[in-house]
Amino acid sequence: MAMELKMTGLTSFMNEDELKYMNPLVQTCNKMLLEKSAQGNDFLGWVNLPVDYDKEEFARIQEAAKKIQKTCDVLVVIGIGGSYLGARAAIEFCLGQMYNSVRPEGIPEVYFLGNNISSGALNDIIKIIGDRDFCINVISKSGRTTEPAIAFRIFKDMCEKKYGKEGAKDRIFATTDKARGALKELANAEGYETFVVPDDVGGRFSVLSAVGLLPIAAAGIDIAEMMRGAAEAREAFTDGTTLDNDCFRYAAIRNILYRKGKGTEILVNYDPALVMFGEWYKQLFAESEGKDLKGIFPVSAAFSTDLHSIGQFIQDGTRNLFETVVWVKEQRSDVTIGHMDGDLDGLNYLEGKTMQFVNSKAYAGTLLAHVDGGAPNVLIEVDKADAYHFGYLCYFFEKACGLSGYLLGVNPFNQPGVESYKKNMFALLGKPGFEEEKKILEARMNG
Amino acid sequence: MAMELKMTGLTSFMNEDELKYMNPLVQTCNKMLLEKSAQGNDFLGWVNLPVDYDKEEFARIQEAAKKIQKTCDVLVVIGIGGSYLGARAAIEFCLGQMYNSVRPEGIPEVYFLGNNISSGALNDIIKIIGDRDFCINVISKSGRTTEPAIAFRIFKDMCEKKYGKEGAKDRIFATTDKARGALKELANAEGYETFVVPDDVGGRFSVLSAVGLLPIAAAGIDIAEMMRGAAEAREAFTDGTTLDNDCFRYAAIRNILYRKGKGTEILVNYDPALVMFGEWYKQLFAESEGKDLKGIFPVSAAFSTDLHSIGQFIQDGTRNLFETVVWVKEQRSDVTIGHMDGDLDGLNYLEGKTMQFVNSKAYAGTLLAHVDGGAPNVLIEVDKADAYHFGYLCYFFEKACGLSGYLLGVNPFNQPGVESYKKNMFALLGKPGFEEEKKILEARMNG
Repeated sequence: MAMELKMTGLTSFMNEDELKYMNPLVQTCNKMLLEKSAQGNDFLGWVNLPVDYDKEEFARIQEAAKKIQKTCDVLVVIGIGGSYLGARAAIEFCLGQMYNSVRPEGIPEVYFLGNNISSGALNDIIKIIGDRDFCINVISKSGRTTEPAIAFRIFKDMCEKKYGKEGAKDRIFATTDKARGALKELANAEGYETFVVPDDVGGRFSVLSAVGLLPIAAAGIDIAEMMRGAAEAREAFTDGTTLDNDCFRYAAIRNILYRKGKGTEILVNYDPALVMFGEWYKQLFAESEGKDLKGIFPVSAAFSTDLHSIGQFIQDGTRNLFETVVWVKEQRSDVTIGHMDGDLDGLNYLEGKTMQFVNSKAYAGTLLAHVDGGAPNVLIEVDKADAYHFGYLCYFFEKACGLSGYLLGVNPFNQPGVESYKKNMFALLGKPGFEEEKKILEARMNG
Repeated sequence: MAMELKMTGLTSFMNEDELKYMNPLVQTCNKMLLEKSAQGNDFLGWVNLPVDYDKEEFARIQEAAKKIQKTCDVLVVIGIGGSYLGARAAIEFCLGQMYNSVRPEGIPEVYFLGNNISSGALNDIIKIIGDRDFCINVISKSGRTTEPAIAFRIFKDMCEKKYGKEGAKDRIFATTDKARGALKELANAEGYETFVVPDDVGGRFSVLSAVGLLPIAAAGIDIAEMMRGAAEAREAFTDGTTLDNDCFRYAAIRNILYRKGKGTEILVNYDPALVMFGEWYKQLFAESEGKDLKGIFPVSAAFSTDLHSIGQFIQDGTRNLFETVVWVKEQRSDVTIGHMDGDLDGLNYLEGKTMQFVNSKAYAGTLLAHVDGGAPNVLIEVDKADAYHFGYLCYFFEKACGLSGYLLGVNPFNQPGVESYKKNMFALLGKPGFEEEKKILEARMNG
């Protein structure tokens, strides 16, 4: 079994009957997903994506990744939201947070840009690249999202200055709409190789499309294994009940806890390699469920680090939260604790034990402590942090998210609220077409 | 003015009378802090720390930092919680997230270890150090906290193997209790230079003591400027009312919003350089307020990145949250947006504008959008992200936190909940003295 959901940390907060009562509702939501019969059904391409994808493009992605590895020291990935989080989450999940510093020979450094408006952060990456060779993967459905557009304008210019127009065209890879939009037009005009942001897959569900796959493959990760993991999860979570399908069960549990006043979910990991996975999860659930003035607020935490930060609150603060712990059983590499003469630090009782053994006891001990303190714990145990398990977990969370959103009674596949800040920003920036709005907003700011 | 709190994003959520009504309560809490007359008064050393500190030790810290800079390529800082977050927050605040890659000549790389139990993360740092020269700053009041103790045991061993006992002693700096404890004993026995974790300053309030100052100084940051900023904040926030003292006002606002059902506070930044500042803030408030089944849950977010993640929820999800935005006016370095022939990306209207100009409009536009959506916004505007302003902001948040905790009716200076997971972990690890507890917990886990 690639992963398993355990109920150990929930028994004092809900009973099995509650899970059973949720089953008919979950079945209905599952049908809504599989039959594409409900709200947001234009964006259900992710449901069958692990088996139903463009094989020719997949092979091109693998080829492009090899080309990137051969021709550059640094890959700059330009994108925001779903065009950023999935790929970075996958790379750190498999290779750790320090992947750029510990990568094997022949793998480029990978930096993610265009996901904020910090000039300091952008200039740092320019300095880090220095006079080394770089390629660019620019990812944007429209090509007009402000953050990535600014970064791409700057890096396209740098790339053309360094390699000439002709050279640059071989170093820029555009992942964008299959037919339309500013970036597609530009790519056609300049002759960039392009990959497709599928029409029926929203950004936060797009990690297993070209959006995520090209940067992940360039970082040296086996994307075929990742797809295999996702395909097996798709198979495993197609049918069943809230008692035997972990995905159905997780969606039901979240809904039950929410109705009991647990309005915040903390996705917990025990390895900093999963920090970006937490960020990916936050976008997935916040954009899918946080609407119509409802939803569970998604937060993430890295233990044991954050047991010395928000741990106090989880143990003993306001009782409005629950935890979902992703526990990875096997470490990428382990360390055995040695001997100290005199045992001044009091650790000799751990001599010969591995750090991961200690970590596993922190996990078990924290579970019991938090449950005693009144924080329900959903446990998701995963064998390894590799490409296969990343694909598997992604699909698990995506499907659970779709089911959860339908259970909550929202359209899980739109994100109308993301436009609000953009409209105001465009107006205040003086973008043509927003003149009236600008006057109104500036009057509000000054009044 | 080093910083300013603005009410623009609050006027539709509270009125000035409410602030006035809170004033007598805040005055009382301020007296409790200044007169050390209430719960937790053993841990109020931070109140006068910016002016009342050991000047001789401060000079030794500056000397030790110079020595570290001269003798090593890498400084490994071993500590967890308050012995980690403050220093890292300060370094990234002043130098950016990529400080290790863009540091000037003569400044070592700085890595933080012993704040988790991930062997993968630890092995990565060992690989990164390679055969380069390193020093260690181990920070632990007792010397027996599991996470840093494990990391230190491993790195002490590495250091002695590489440099011999004599050489290692000049490369290990211990920040610990002034007289007692395992690390102090070890330091005495081995001859390490030591610095003091003050008795009356809790971990989360300790960044302006040797705990934070040595790593910060080693990273090339002017700690005298940092202390000056903190001292000026101490002066500025000593007295006044909830109408003219920003610190009093912030404590009052948090308390008012909490009682209106805003149980989650999101500390927002507009530059990834402030991400670790958000982590520091989370420990500060979660450990101080999250107890007795109450408290505001502290979360952080980096915009505009997270506007494409939790932004949807903030705009339109459950209305139980408010934002506190730390806006830094000036960037470390800026970038001017250039021209693109044909304007395919639609950005030519920004030609000649800086990225920070765009960022400032994202800030203003988001404020208006979120307020319209029903999320109250506290605005904290800071001139620059440098050592002086870091010190100033730290003191502002520390004092506001003390006041907030007293207003909430808790002891803001203890953290009893942090022990719960430790006790269970010790038992499950088989630590001598926990035999009975072990049997009970293992029975629970198997039942």
